[in-house]
Amino acid sequence: MNNKITIKNGDRIDFKNNVDFCVGTGRMGLALQKEYQEQLAFVQKYIGFKHIRGHGLFTDDMAIYHQYKDEEGNVYDEYNYTYLDMVMDSYIEKGLRPFLELGFMPKKMASGDQTIFYWKGNVTPPSEYSRWNKMVQNLLRHLIERYGADDVVTWPIEVWNEPNLPGFWKGADMEEYFKLFKETFYAIKEVNPAFRVGGPAICGVDDERWMQCFMEFIDRENIPLDFVTRHHYTTDNPEFIGHYGYPALRDGDAEFAVLEKSREIIDSFPKYKGLEMHITEFNTSYIGNAPVHDTNQNAAFVARLLSRMGEVNESYSYWTFGDIFEEGGVPFTPFHGGFGMVADGIIPKPTFWTFKFFKDLKDAQDCGGECVYKDHNGVIVRTEKGYRGILWNDNRVRTNEEMNFEIELPSNAGEYFLCRELVDEEVCNPLKIWHDMGEPSSLSASQKEILRAGAYPLVSSDTVKASDTIRLSFKLKEHAVLKFELVERSLKSDRGYDYNRVMQY
Amino acid sequence: MNNKITIKNGDRIDFKNNVDFCVGTGRMGLALQKEYQEQLAFVQKYIGFKHIRGHGLFTDDMAIYHQYKDEEGNVYDEYNYTYLDMVMDSYIEKGLRPFLELGFMPKKMASGDQTIFYWKGNVTPPSEYSRWNKMVQNLLRHLIERYGADDVVTWPIEVWNEPNLPGFWKGADMEEYFKLFKETFYAIKEVNPAFRVGGPAICGVDDERWMQCFMEFIDRENIPLDFVTRHHYTTDNPEFIGHYGYPALRDGDAEFAVLEKSREIIDSFPKYKGLEMHITEFNTSYIGNAPVHDTNQNAAFVARLLSRMGEVNESYSYWTFGDIFEEGGVPFTPFHGGFGMVADGIIPKPTFWTFKFFKDLKDAQDCGGECVYKDHNGVIVRTEKGYRGILWNDNRVRTNEEMNFEIELPSNAGEYFLCRELVDEEVCNPLKIWHDMGEPSSLSASQKEILRAGAYPLVSSDTVKASDTIRLSFKLKEHAVLKFELVERSLKSDRGYDYNRVMQY
Amino acid sequence: MNNKITIKNGDRIDFKNNVDFCVGTGRMGLALQKEYQEQLAFVQKYIGFKHIRGHGLFTDDMAIYHQYKDEEGNVYDEYNYTYLDMVMDSYIEKGLRPFLELGFMPKKMASGDQTIFYWKGNVTPPSEYSRWNKMVQNLLRHLIERYGADDVVTWPIEVWNEPNLPGFWKGADMEEYFKLFKETFYAIKEVNPAFRVGGPAICGVDDERWMQCFMEFIDRENIPLDFVTRHHYTTDNPEFIGHYGYPALRDGDAEFAVLEKSREIIDSFPKYKGLEMHITEFNTSYIGNAPVHDTNQNAAFVARLLSRMGEVNESYSYWTFGDIFEEGGVPFTPFHGGFGMVADGIIPKPTFWTFKFFKDLKDAQDCGGECVYKDHNGVIVRTEKGYRGILWNDNRVRTNEEMNFEIELPSNAGEYFLCRELVDEEVCNPLKIWHDMGEPSSLSASQKEILRAGAYPLVSSDTVKASDTIRLSFKLKEHAVLKFELVERSLKSDRGYDYNRVMQY
Amino acid sequence: MNNKITIKNGDRIDFKNNVDFCVGTGRMGLALQKEYQEQLAFVQKYIGFKHIRGHGLFTDDMAIYHQYKDEEGNVYDEYNYTYLDMVMDSYIEKGLRPFLELGFMPKKMASGDQTIFYWKGNVTPPSEYSRWNKMVQNLLRHLIERYGADDVVTWPIEVWNEPNLPGFWKGADMEEYFKLFKETFYAIKEVNPAFRVGGPAICGVDDERWMQCFMEFIDRENIPLDFVTRHHYTTDNPEFIGHYGYPALRDGDAEFAVLEKSREIIDSFPKYKGLEMHITEFNTSYIGNAPVHDTNQNAAFVARLLSRMGEVNESYSYWTFGDIFEEGGVPFTPFHGGFGMVADGIIPKPTFWTFKFFKDLKDAQDCGGECVYKDHNGVIVRTEKGYRGILWNDNRVRTNEEMNFEIELPSNAGEYFLCRELVDEEVCNPLKIWHDMGEPSSLSASQKEILRAGAYPLVSSDTVKASDTIRLSFKLKEHAVLKFELVERSLKSDRGYDYNRVMQY
Repeated sequence: MNNKITIKNGDRIDFKNNVDFCVGTGRMGLALQKEYQEQLAFVQKYIGFKHIRGHGLFTDDMAIYHQYKDEEGNVYDEYNYTYLDMVMDSYIEKGLRPFLELGFMPKKMASGDQTIFYWKGNVTPPSEYSRWNKMVQNLLRHLIERYGADDVVTWPIEVWNEPNLPGFWKGADMEEYFKLFKETFYAIKEVNPAFRVGGPAICGVDDERWMQCFMEFIDRENIPLDFVTRHHYTTDNPEFIGHYGYPALRDGDAEFAVLEKSREIIDSFPKYKGLEMHITEFNTSYIGNAPVHDTNQNAAFVARLLSRMGEVNESYSYWTFGDIFEEGGVPFTPFHGGFGMVADGIIPKPTFWTFKFFKDLKDAQDCGGECVYKDHNGVIVRTEKGYRGILWNDNRVRTNEEMNFEIELPSNAGEYFLCRELVDEEVCNPLKIWHDMGEPSSLSASQKEILRAGAYPLVSSDTVKASDTIRLSFKLKEHAVLKFELVERSLKSDRGYDYNRVMQY
Repeated sequence: MNNKITIKNGDRIDFKNNVDFCVGTGRMGLALQKEYQEQLAFVQKYIGFKHIRGHGLFTDDMAIYHQYKDEEGNVYDEYNYTYLDMVMDSYIEKGLRPFLELGFMPKKMASGDQTIFYWKGNVTPPSEYSRWNKMVQNLLRHLIERYGADDVVTWPIEVWNEPNLPGFWKGADMEEYFKLFKETFYAIKEVNPAFRVGGPAICGVDDERWMQCFMEFIDRENIPLDFVTRHHYTTDNPEFIGHYGYPALRDGDAEFAVLEKSREIIDSFPKYKGLEMHITEFNTSYIGNAPVHDTNQNAAFVARLLSRMGEVNESYSYWTFGDIFEEGGVPFTPFHGGFGMVADGIIPKPTFWTFKFFKDLKDAQDCGGECVYKDHNGVIVRTEKGYRGILWNDNRVRTNEEMNFEIELPSNAGEYFLCRELVDEEVCNPLKIWHDMGEPSSLSASQKEILRAGAYPLVSSDTVKASDTIRLSFKLKEHAVLKFELVERSLKSDRGYDYNRVMQY
Repeated sequence: MNNKITIKNGDRIDFKNNVDFCVGTGRMGLALQKEYQEQLAFVQKYIGFKHIRGHGLFTDDMAIYHQYKDEEGNVYDEYNYTYLDMVMDSYIEKGLRPFLELGFMPKKMASGDQTIFYWKGNVTPPSEYSRWNKMVQNLLRHLIERYGADDVVTWPIEVWNEPNLPGFWKGADMEEYFKLFKETFYAIKEVNPAFRVGGPAICGVDDERWMQCFMEFIDRENIPLDFVTRHHYTTDNPEFIGHYGYPALRDGDAEFAVLEKSREIIDSFPKYKGLEMHITEFNTSYIGNAPVHDTNQNAAFVARLLSRMGEVNESYSYWTFGDIFEEGGVPFTPFHGGFGMVADGIIPKPTFWTFKFFKDLKDAQDCGGECVYKDHNGVIVRTEKGYRGILWNDNRVRTNEEMNFEIELPSNAGEYFLCRELVDEEVCNPLKIWHDMGEPSSLSASQKEILRAGAYPLVSSDTVKASDTIRLSFKLKEHAVLKFELVERSLKSDRGYDYNRVMQY
Repeated sequence: MNNKITIKNGDRIDFKNNVDFCVGTGRMGLALQKEYQEQLAFVQKYIGFKHIRGHGLFTDDMAIYHQYKDEEGNVYDEYNYTYLDMVMDSYIEKGLRPFLELGFMPKKMASGDQTIFYWKGNVTPPSEYSRWNKMVQNLLRHLIERYGADDVVTWPIEVWNEPNLPGFWKGADMEEYFKLFKETFYAIKEVNPAFRVGGPAICGVDDERWMQCFMEFIDRENIPLDFVTRHHYTTDNPEFIGHYGYPALRDGDAEFAVLEKSREIIDSFPKYKGLEMHITEFNTSYIGNAPVHDTNQNAAFVARLLSRMGEVNESYSYWTFGDIFEEGGVPFTPFHGGFGMVADGIIPKPTFWTFKFFKDLKDAQDCGGECVYKDHNGVIVRTEKGYRGILWNDNRVRTNEEMNFEIELPSNAGEYFLCRELVDEEVCNPLKIWHDMGEPSSLSASQKEILRAGAYPLVSSDTVKASDTIRLSFKLKEHAVLKFELVERSLKSDRGYDYNRVMQY
């Protein structure tokens, strides 16, 4: 397949790129783990997200909420921030701030026994809303005391997770969620009105009705909502076999209709028109054992998503940064189809590089670079001294077709340094290496080394001569993602140095 | 060009591989530097040499030798080991031991003013041999006190460097060198007879005569010599332009005649027949500003050398591990043709990987692996569970020809994990990237990152089915070096995991 | 109080010092945590234990044991070593090997619902012993595959924990325990007869009867038992108030009778006379919220224990190395009376130094040093070049009395370097600093720094002149522990250096 | 001796504390060394200086300036920034910026052969001022290209070092220096007029005349001088014995007259009245082998200096941060009386803590704290929640007198956390430990550990009750420096925690 791209002087395309705003994580309690922290440090070193969002802030392994009785049987609340401090300190020392998701219910405060996940998050409403409100307020006041109000009020707050699913919120009881939302919203604002609070954090099940009703409720109650949140997954229901699930990818572009519909609903309320919408979770599959997550296909598919997610959303948070994650239990193998960009053993998966490349593009945009091209298979940004672009060849079903790109870019006459970073099934595919190894469940140190060595992009370069146009051509194998960079260059050979002689060209 | 290799059961080839015995270094005083230490740490992490050898132990920047006078004008010796301790500690904490080269002459002890190099090593004989002997003995006693005799006596000792060159030893005065040798030899043995002492450390100028005379002297004096040392470089004299020198590569195989001649001379003395010969320096070019050192061509050329250096030599020490080196002054650019395997900024050059690959082969041999093939373009070792091999396509002058390898190996029926690590001009060529950048003399942090990212082998894998034979085929571009590994593998897929389904094959 | 110690030439005292053989830990699953690993790294850097023992190997957070059914309803076992590998790798990279305690029961394998601790370890017998045996064997085979049989068979194995308590083993059912022991013993030996297996891991409740019956059972069944294990705590039952427990210290020396009794019972069986007895847990209090653990008093009390624990025991494992520990829930404050030698935030408690000092003594013994003195308040070892000793002033109830030591040691004439490391309530007392701070539950970074700065021994020195005797005198405040070291020294002043002039003495 | 300090509400004292503005360093080329970088990292971690100033930027070991000739014999300049980049990168990554001292003369550019120091800095004027100017300009342009103009123009520039000494500037030729100054000044401003340039960098020899003449010259030439620089040492000439020099301390307070005189001269020129004066070097002794530098006496003496240096000076740079320094050659022992705050082996000397304490005071001032007391033996700052102060007991000649402090501070009623950090000859005196060891010239790893362990302040605390006054009393041994901190505290004991019960008080 051929792809001809011709850019003209003055071309400029809207491309909202908020790739580094937020990333998802396994439940908060897992942040105490060493491997989790090492994976996160790796992600922050290369990409540097601003926020991190996950479940389980109030789940019992964080040990925040306690009760005790005096001799007369009066019940008192007690809070324990020992683990909370460890987690928050670890985020902040990595340049991260939480996107606080308030949930789930501490057992002692819960009105029922229903739980979700291997780690048993209680998903029932509070038995007493006053205790819930106090717990939330006390937590925020503690954070403010520890980290300062100026910082803490910039941490967005979302009320609960996916209440439209009966698994996540008992009975998917909409009225009860609205109550929770309102109570929590005003409890937070009482601590400090500068906090920004949003919801309803719904996923794509009955979501249109939920969004409509939520906004009607907000409007009716005249709540000064700060932002709306929802999730976005783009696969069919998986077929489950043994420990794994196999879902089919949907048409990523077509799926955007769902987001546009949410946008439309919000905008239909005059008071809330244009209100920020944050996608607080997205990925291809919504299960943590879908092997597709580990593939180059996923990397290419996500590239397309990242090129478009900013169109109607303020931000979009990939679910999740790493593979320390226990919703479905502890994985049996390192390549088990976890959500993470990084596999256990600090092995970056192909999708990691998609994020890294879009972050590089954002860096260029932040330095004044302007997008000159954005289409189904690529985005290109003009920089001060050249161009930076990402190209990909994504397919939902394997076709074995390569894609050729012929690109013309307006330029100054001169020479350019062309640097390519390529991720494809041949040069950056740790999953294949692991398979060829025999799919070992326990990796030896040397196996980890090989897997890591095979998990980095292939970097190569050329010198490109330009008159008033630069002509580039690239051939991308199926599921490849390529980042290229052009930088004006003038050869400044040291006295006596002759590269062509060195190389015997 | 095609290369058909057929191995049969029972094939076994002598292959003495002592790749990690010793490596060269810039003068000892440079070991105080941070960049030097970081390059060395990198080399040790991947390769792990046992010994390190360089010049300048007694040169004044090490500040070891001092004199002072009392009021009557009597002159006393004084020794300062502040820097020596720092250097030795740094080696030992990296698992290294020095191959001690005794030289050059402290200014205060020298009989003349002649110096060599930018850093002005004095190359004249001692004004008083008794002071020289005392200095050597005191140094060894200090080392023994600090590191223990058991350890220190295993550090080989070489007397001076290249006395056959008038630049390195005033007048290339053979008789004076023999005197120095004998004095030093017995001074050392007096400290501890277990020390192993060798010479004459000559390079390839008038070397046949020197070797003959040296051995005659040793024989005549009946010195219980522990080993012989010499150097080995394999290029013509360079043409110098500006800061650089351009030498032509000689025929690596033909050059072995020189070493065989030395061997022959030694063996012609019955008392010394079979005495160890250590090549205490080798490389392609003998100048530290020959851009060929930075090329993939060098990597492939050195691969051939490494496959044969053990034939007549006990060990062979590549000159040098890193590019912190000042013989010709401070380099103007990071890719200045330094001797190092690693460029400044911890950027491994292609030749680094040649050493890494031969070290991997040695590890296999140390675990019982036996060489089954060794020829002009490859070495293969049978391991417990498969094979490990290195192939290369080296040319002295660019031909642009690829080389095809068709390999048949006897095997158990079953499946094998085939892992390839490829270094060639396309996938692992930091020099080209640097050139395409415009040959910057000062690298920014991001330029260093790109160069490093482009300086690692391409790792890829396959599953290979075998009956009683494994058939492999490889295509190597010119100047490529490839390491491959075959490991028996049995696929142990976790319950429900189906790789072909994941990949949609 | 005065303490006069006079050593004569030739004095020699038996002092079995196995302080570094083993240390206790919170449940295995906590080893995944970052803070746990950092505390352990700290402990290993200073002390370097050989083994580590804790509960919870088979508890569900380690996720080792699973079951699944096929369509006909047949139940299959499945094992997951993802977390096990992480934990074992982390130990081994720190030079540690586990002292394996087999327990508790995976929920899916349990015969009942009874659990212990905040983290709900199931303490009921297996529903099918065959599955238990298979699980144990599979685990050992996995460890052998990963770490090599030579290494793994040296890891001691203990069957269950404190079965004499109904909280730890349902009904404290002795017969059931003996069954478990025998089944497990032979299952292990089937994997590799070189494994060493012991029990009954009892604590001090009804322990005499248990030990007697256990040995009778072993004798009767003719089991080739490898060693006996038991625990040792030395406080009365605590009074509980709020989150804390306040126990009174018992007479440490008197408490040894309990151990001697166990010894006696073992030795009364001719086949097992002299069999190793390992104290697989000891401490002052047996609860993890006894503030006494954080005090200098604890450090002095433990010093006395360490001087005597080797008398009848092969080893003795302090419970525990660090404060990441959740048996009673997550602690509310950093100084909550946890068992650990190290408080959260890597703050060493006084008791940490007691262990460090005894390890220093052991180092001296391992280098040929011989004990010349051991009594209620001190141990002294003669080294090659002097002496190394520990003195302490321990009281069960505060008396505010200092203790004076007057010590005479035989010596060579000359000068000695006397180096003191002092831990007492004034110079090394982080608990007091924390109290004076206001007992903060959340420590800021600067508070942690101050606490750490106040948690190290005070180091000071003197020059001591000796004829044929060295005379030392020390004054120890209550609850102080002092390490001193004497090293023969000859002043080698550099030319022109005059210390007395420098100091204006 | 008794010292009664009574502070009243509203007391406020001027105390200009610029302790962290700049610190001195051995010559720039030494910044390539590993030990240097580790000492600097240590200093920056605890203190965090903003600037660093040393000699030797243009000295030949930095290899910046080169010349070559073409075939007609024309001479061209060539610049090499390989080492410069390494040094500057290392500073910037530690949060440091240079205070650039332009000197000494590259050999190739020098008009004569006169050199200074072991490392042979050429101190003669340039043979051609145009080449000097070009070299300076090229260097600044290179720095701007690498680090950005916004940053680089904030690096102060000083022209040469101590031209009033014939050792540092041939003939101490004043007119030649003025020429150099003017040429350089305008060359710099041509690159970027925002650069700030000063001189004359004189020391205390014939300094009054030099300052007067320099200002007259500046005034006459109407040079828009940015600041004045000079040095400040406070000892008599040393007596030299062997490798060491023994100077007597002068009266630190009396010596300020010298600085005031300089101030007066500057202010006498109306155009330059109030111009910044930077003390670009100060210390007690001006030689790098004065053992006094390693003493507690030095720490106390420097405390007094630091309390007053801001009175007439904008900044004052301690000479030097560490002991990697070669002016007089390589030191023979770790405690050789080097200028450094930190001895080789990363052993902080007592004076290091004086700087740390004054930095802590500055932090308090930067957060709004106001000085309430400053006198010969102490400085106290009121903070938001209490007080932070430094006390010292300095004597020029040993008297063995303690000093008692009785302090009254106005306060809120309540309780205070009193934290003490004490540095005195008993508790923080690595020099004494080293002496007691026998003054070893080569430190073993364990000796370094002991020395480090004995080189940190003793930290202790108390709870102080206050009504409207806090009463403190301290006893300082001779040469002690004490930092104390008072922080309002309210005891928040966790439920059930009773410290007095724990401690059995």
